[in-house]
Amino acid sequence: MRNSSRGNVDPFIVMDVMEAARQAEADGRHIIHMEVGQPGTPAPAAARDALAAAMKDDSLGYTVALGLPALRARIAKLYGEWYNVDLDPARVVVTPGSSGGFILAFSALFDAGDRVALGRPGYPSYRQIMKAMDLVPVEVESRAENRLQPTPEDLAQIDYQGLMVASPANPTGTMLDRGALAALIDACQAKGASFLSDEIYHGIEYDKKAVTALEISDDVCVINSFSKYFSMTGWRAGWLVLPEANIRQVERLAQNMFICAPHASQVAALAAMDAGIELEANMQVYRANRAMMLDGLPKVGFDRIAPPDGAFYVYADVSHLTGDSRAFAAEILDKAGVAVTPGLDFDPDRGAGTLRFSYARSTADIAEGLERLGKFMRNRGVID
Amino acid sequence: MRNSSRGNVDPFIVMDVMEAARQAEADGRHIIHMEVGQPGTPAPAAARDALAAAMKDDSLGYTVALGLPALRARIAKLYGEWYNVDLDPARVVVTPGSSGGFILAFSALFDAGDRVALGRPGYPSYRQIMKAMDLVPVEVESRAENRLQPTPEDLAQIDYQGLMVASPANPTGTMLDRGALAALIDACQAKGASFLSDEIYHGIEYDKKAVTALEISDDVCVINSFSKYFSMTGWRAGWLVLPEANIRQVERLAQNMFICAPHASQVAALAAMDAGIELEANMQVYRANRAMMLDGLPKVGFDRIAPPDGAFYVYADVSHLTGDSRAFAAEILDKAGVAVTPGLDFDPDRGAGTLRFSYARSTADIAEGLERLGKFMRNRGVID
Repeated sequence: MRNSSRGNVDPFIVMDVMEAARQAEADGRHIIHMEVGQPGTPAPAAARDALAAAMKDDSLGYTVALGLPALRARIAKLYGEWYNVDLDPARVVVTPGSSGGFILAFSALFDAGDRVALGRPGYPSYRQIMKAMDLVPVEVESRAENRLQPTPEDLAQIDYQGLMVASPANPTGTMLDRGALAALIDACQAKGASFLSDEIYHGIEYDKKAVTALEISDDVCVINSFSKYFSMTGWRAGWLVLPEANIRQVERLAQNMFICAPHASQVAALAAMDAGIELEANMQVYRANRAMMLDGLPKVGFDRIAPPDGAFYVYADVSHLTGDSRAFAAEILDKAGVAVTPGLDFDPDRGAGTLRFSYARSTADIAEGLERLGKFMRNRGVID
Repeated sequence: MRNSSRGNVDPFIVMDVMEAARQAEADGRHIIHMEVGQPGTPAPAAARDALAAAMKDDSLGYTVALGLPALRARIAKLYGEWYNVDLDPARVVVTPGSSGGFILAFSALFDAGDRVALGRPGYPSYRQIMKAMDLVPVEVESRAENRLQPTPEDLAQIDYQGLMVASPANPTGTMLDRGALAALIDACQAKGASFLSDEIYHGIEYDKKAVTALEISDDVCVINSFSKYFSMTGWRAGWLVLPEANIRQVERLAQNMFICAPHASQVAALAAMDAGIELEANMQVYRANRAMMLDGLPKVGFDRIAPPDGAFYVYADVSHLTGDSRAFAAEILDKAGVAVTPGLDFDPDRGAGTLRFSYARSTADIAEGLERLGKFMRNRGVID
């Protein structure tokens, strides 16, 4: 059977790093994982307990396509708690992870050939999912002085039917403040385009709170997930918030394309939302890790970094050290035993000179990783 | 934000029945559910136990995109057990339900505008997912003398890049025997088209075993799921089997579009595959229910039926009783307190004269449902 043309999406370059790391571990080496974009912690205990209880007396069949009503209501309540936004639960759609959210939102909002603007660097799957769905990702190079977030000026000369932003962003961890977000929403709406806000890292923020697009406009599509702040990556549960006028279309698509998000994950997610103490403990680890990284990375020679506002990544400019971040990452893995992500996944051009360090794992791992990176950079003559 | 054109898929007509049934229950009425296409049983106890144990000492983060290696190996082994087919686990892809399998297979195999042939009646989501993905479903009316399965003759005059069949089929429960399946595969391959075989009801079969397309050719795409035989609908775990030459493309798409199938569901599914005693007990219930339906439906006046080879549905021709199956189903719900599915979801033309009865629930429910249908048909003057 022939492979389709639209399905011929790019591989993740980090997969080579992960496979090499796995091979090194199989050979008995100890590897520090700064490449992975997921928490090392499991779902909160309350979430696992809730599921264990539900498995005893609920057959956990299909839920309705939009998700368990109690979960939709609880998500709506979160918008009151986090942002003081009054949200109708009828506008919330529970999805199979933010991945399922993208597929539903793109199907519901865009036709084949529609152009969707994105900042570069950004999460690589945005453009790959678009390609697989016959959309045209239009990537604009964001600028260092804007902390690698797009601005209305960057988009002024571009024709697009949709604009997607992420704040906090992957790989940079930078946020759009209220003014910057509002300016982008205004620019997008002035073109009659749909605005999509990927808010998957909300909750994992440091000096200031992340702003949701819903604080600014109801005519936006918000994509979120239980994967990061709620520490439930493998559970594949997320959500969309949409204008009321788009809900019926999304519901019909969800009925046909997914039937429902995993029932067990919905039960766990509902309980996770009230696991504040455990989630706050996770945040304390991220805070400690971030402080250690912001102090330690410059000391070991990775000094071209900007403090992330949120998420658990540091995006480092290493263009003075290499013109091939993929080879550089392979060298760091080989010599230092630390797995990191080459920037090429996020930015196929400028990413040749960048690396992403994740600090989602334990603080002890971060300390050991910085130690190893220091030795590597000393041997390379970058630091004394 | 505007709704897309391709996302404007048809609603499920059965949803109106389900909503009316829910409303009736909220009003205090007792309803027998013969409309639902899912087992009333939970996942096997062994599956739930395995997950409960895993939740204690595994963080259940992302799995690799193709699925847990142990699960892929166990699925490959199933083909030896069930069909005596020797299958390389490298050709197995774990998916978020068969729904996720359709999205992956369609993305990997077909470009926008490609035509995919389907028998009508059939599972309505096939054509809706295709529409949302800019494929063109080409439905051919199957004939009663072929037990509503398509034949090479039905397809002879049609241009298509893909052909999808289901055996046992929904809504009819009829199967393609080895000769009929081989003839369809030959016809499809002679056109250079991709052959997709939906085998979600395999294992739920009565007088003879279902034949997998893999017994006939390696150059096919098989779609299956843990939802039906393994009684895990809400868990959203399924699988694809593909030719080796398509695996890399599907892997890259899965990495981007889904990241992975739900980890918890994969753990549960692996254990479910060895829960033979419990699964066989479920089958005993389906066998008893089927016998009761085949005996009871004609007695209460639904006598234009064919015995299903598999699945848990009876598709009845009621065109001598109504020209509007939607209104007829509403009347049955209202007067008899039995929810059934109008055939219009499966066949927008001829389905005006058909109903689908599901016997997936308890035997007591089936007995009560037949009792009520008998009373209804007596009052309507169809039987004495």
